[in-house]
This record gives sequence, C-alpha cells and structure tokens, in this order.
Amino acid sequence: MNILVTNDDGITSQGILSLVHALRPLGTVTVVAPDRQQSAVGHALTVSEPLRVTRIWRDDQFFGFAVSGTPADCVKLAVARLLDKRPDIVVSGINHGYNTGINVLYSGTVSAATEAMLMGIPAIAVSLGSFDENADCTVAARTAAYLVERYADFELPVTTLLNVNVPPLPEDRIKGVRITRQGQGMWNDTYDERLDPMGRPYYWLSGTYNHLDSDPNADDVAVEQGFIAITPIRFHLTDHDALERLKERF
Amino acid sequence: MNILVTNDDGITSQGILSLVHALRPLGTVTVVAPDRQQSAVGHALTVSEPLRVTRIWRDDQFFGFAVSGTPADCVKLAVARLLDKRPDIVVSGINHGYNTGINVLYSGTVSAATEAMLMGIPAIAVSLGSFDENADCTVAARTAAYLVERYADFELPVTTLLNVNVPPLPEDRIKGVRITRQGQGMWNDTYDERLDPMGRPYYWLSGTYNHLDSDPNADDVAVEQGFIAITPIRFHLTDHDALERLKERF
Repeated sequence: MNILVTNDDGITSQGILSLVHALRPLGTVTVVAPDRQQSAVGHALTVSEPLRVTRIWRDDQFFGFAVSGTPADCVKLAVARLLDKRPDIVVSGINHGYNTGINVLYSGTVSAATEAMLMGIPAIAVSLGSFDENADCTVAARTAAYLVERYADFELPVTTLLNVNVPPLPEDRIKGVRITRQGQGMWNDTYDERLDPMGRPYYWLSGTYNHLDSDPNADDVAVEQGFIAITPIRFHLTDHDALERLKERF
Repeated sequence: MNILVTNDDGITSQGILSLVHALRPLGTVTVVAPDRQQSAVGHALTVSEPLRVTRIWRDDQFFGFAVSGTPADCVKLAVARLLDKRPDIVVSGINHGYNTGINVLYSGTVSAATEAMLMGIPAIAVSLGSFDENADCTVAARTAAYLVERYADFELPVTTLLNVNVPPLPEDRIKGVRITRQGQGMWNDTYDERLDPMGRPYYWLSGTYNHLDSDPNADDVAVEQGFIAITPIRFHLTDHDALERLKERF
C-alpha cells in the first residue's frame, strides 16, 4: 500500500513523526508536508507564486519532502509531481488541536484530506485535542493505522472522507470510538488591539468557541466525553430545500 | 440598511468599486477588504500574526479599510472591531473569475460570505466569468443590488448563503436567471517545473478544469449557457448515509 502523509503543523512537528512511525508497517509511506506551520489556512492554494521543495532528513534517514505551501498544495504537488505512484490513501495529521464542529472549515489538516478526496483518493484527517507540542500522540497514531487498515471495509463513497478527533488521554482512559456528526458551534471573535513600537495599532485574533450542541453524537461533545470521534464528511454544498424555494421566487 | 462589502481580489480592484457604486443607493456601505490579491486562499484565517488596517481613499473620497489579511479575516475584523453596527448583509465580490463547482472550496470570495453566514448574517458572493481587470461589471453589480433588495423575500435559512455567478456578457445577451446547484468537476493539475537563475527547480501550479456535469441546473453549465447562476449553499458537511453505515462497522 502506498500511503501519502501530510499535515498543517509542518514537517518538523511531533504529530507527523508519530503518524509516520505508526503507518510504516502498513506500506510505503511518503511524507510531503509544509515547511512551516500552516494552521487555519483552510483550503488555500498557492497560485500567485511558485512552490519550492526541500528534502528533509530526520534521525539520519530521509524523512520526506518539505513544500513551501499549504497542506492542499502538498497533496496536489505530491500526486502531480513528487510521487512515482498515485497513493492508495492520504493521511493528514496528527494535528495539534481538535478539528471539530465549524473548525473543519478553517482546518488545513482537513483541507489536505479534502484535496485527496477531490482526486478520488481515500483520505483521513487526524487531530489530537492538545496544543502541547510534546503531547503523547500514541493513541491518535494507532487509531490512524487501524483506520487505514480497515478503510476498504467501511465502503465509503469516493466523495466522503473521515475526520478523526482524539482526546488527549492515555489509552486506558479513552472510552471508545463514537461515529459522529459535525457539531454545531460558533466563534465569539475578539481582536486584541495593541500598539507597535512606532505607536501604530495592530489587531490580533483571539476568541472563544461556543458549543451550541449537547448531543453526544456531535463530534465536539463526543471528544469532551472521552471518545474518539469519527465523522464522515463530504462537500455537497447545495441547499436543495432553499433551491426549490428560490425557484418559486424567480 | 448597513451593507458590508468585501472581496478577495483586493480593495483596489475594479470589481469591488462597481459593487460599491451599485449598492450605495440601498443603504450605508462600508468596505473592508484585503490590501492585496488573495485569490484561492479558501477559508484561511490569519492567526499567527497580527492584522494591520489602512484607510483607503478613491476619487478623493474615503473608500474603505484595507486589511493585511484574507477575506475571512476582513469579515471577522469588520464585525468585531471596525463597524459601529452589525451589518444587515455582507456582499463579497465582484470576483474576477467564476466560483462555480468545486472552485467554491478554494474561493476567498465565497469564504467571506461563509464567514458572515457563520455569524448569522445574510451573505451573497458574486463572481464574474472574466479575468480581465477591466471587464464590464455592470450586470454583476446590478444583480447583486437586486438580490440585496429582495433578500428577505427569499426566506433563506441563516445557515445558507447565495453564490452568484454572472457570465461576462452585455445585458441584452444574458438569457436570464437560473437557480442552480453546485456543479461537479475536477481539476487536472499540472505543475510547470522551471529553474531559477541559480539553477534550482521551482514548481508552478497550472491545470485544466474538467466539467463532469451536463445538467443545465449545474452552476457551471448554466453560466456557459448564458444564464446568471444563483446557488444556495450551506456547510452541513456530515455524510449521514456513511455515518449510519460506519456505525454498523464499530
């Protein structure tokens, strides 16, 4: 099996290293990942400038290709140029921080999986609910490997990918797996206004996430309750009810 | 009516100017837009660095706020900080180039409207099928104004926005309005490999879009046939069929 691994925290992150170690026993793993942190880039592509590729070694071994672009760029460039064979599956992660609820839209991790899915390649995005760079990724990595092995068995449509979120708990405190839907919530944005050394203002995004869901089948609720949340997502964006109503108005 | 206008081509583009002129008779228009071209940024947010805001004059008049960020940043910062009142509607565009089919996912123009929708604000994204900077935006701008005026009449759910694509034709050659669904298609990516003056390779994305739809109700087919395509879109991403099937597997 040919497995393409990418992420949005950058090729030097702990999460991608754990993921690669867990997937190597399953096939040929190739890493093509951003050369730096690319959080919250959404489904951005680099079109106005070219991409650079650097070969990266870790522990005296060739580790993968670092790309001067976004997670979606990495998948496109890997499939179009860098890989000898089309991958059988793309795994994106392990992201530091949950990608649940509406955050899926902002997530570079999920966007890499989305890009693979758009090409008809099976795809999994994996996120761990901890921003600690040294967080233990063992459970998340093992979950990813398990899902890669069983992927065919899930009989997912080619237009659907798996978005996996793992609580930052030791294995014996994980309560199990829950198949979930995307939770509902919204950000309450605030911007810090600060002054630079020249006295000019600048604005920095902060904010709090309001969970609007209490349904245990919502991804964000499931992880809070200690479950690994697996959400099948797709990008059929048309609102067909609204479409029919609009037709009557024109 | 308080109308927030933004785009992804940048505050100096012709498209946003035409849009502002068409909307001014309807209420108080405030422009908060990127300070430079931000195409294909998807739903990116700027989180790792702060945002700068510059006041922009055009024709000796205050025109709006230029933000050193993405379209989604502009909407967030406008609502959280720059506007005195919450906008009644957000209009994003006029984009130079269609945002139909799968391109909705890559579109900064649509992402600005999506960000507004996530805040519960009515939103319209408007794109014109021409990359010519001097393309005539009259029909697209007039369509936007018409939709803003009639928005309440459409009774759209707060989770749905309108994605509008306008053919680059004079008004008398437009065949009418068609309410559409998101078309299906995919990009065939190619990357030009070139050498820089130091002899090092770099890669530049090009590619062709394959239309996989011939249904006249698909947005990309409708515009090719000379219709203004209006697609109601929403971001309910869960694949519920796959969810049920997955439950049986765990």
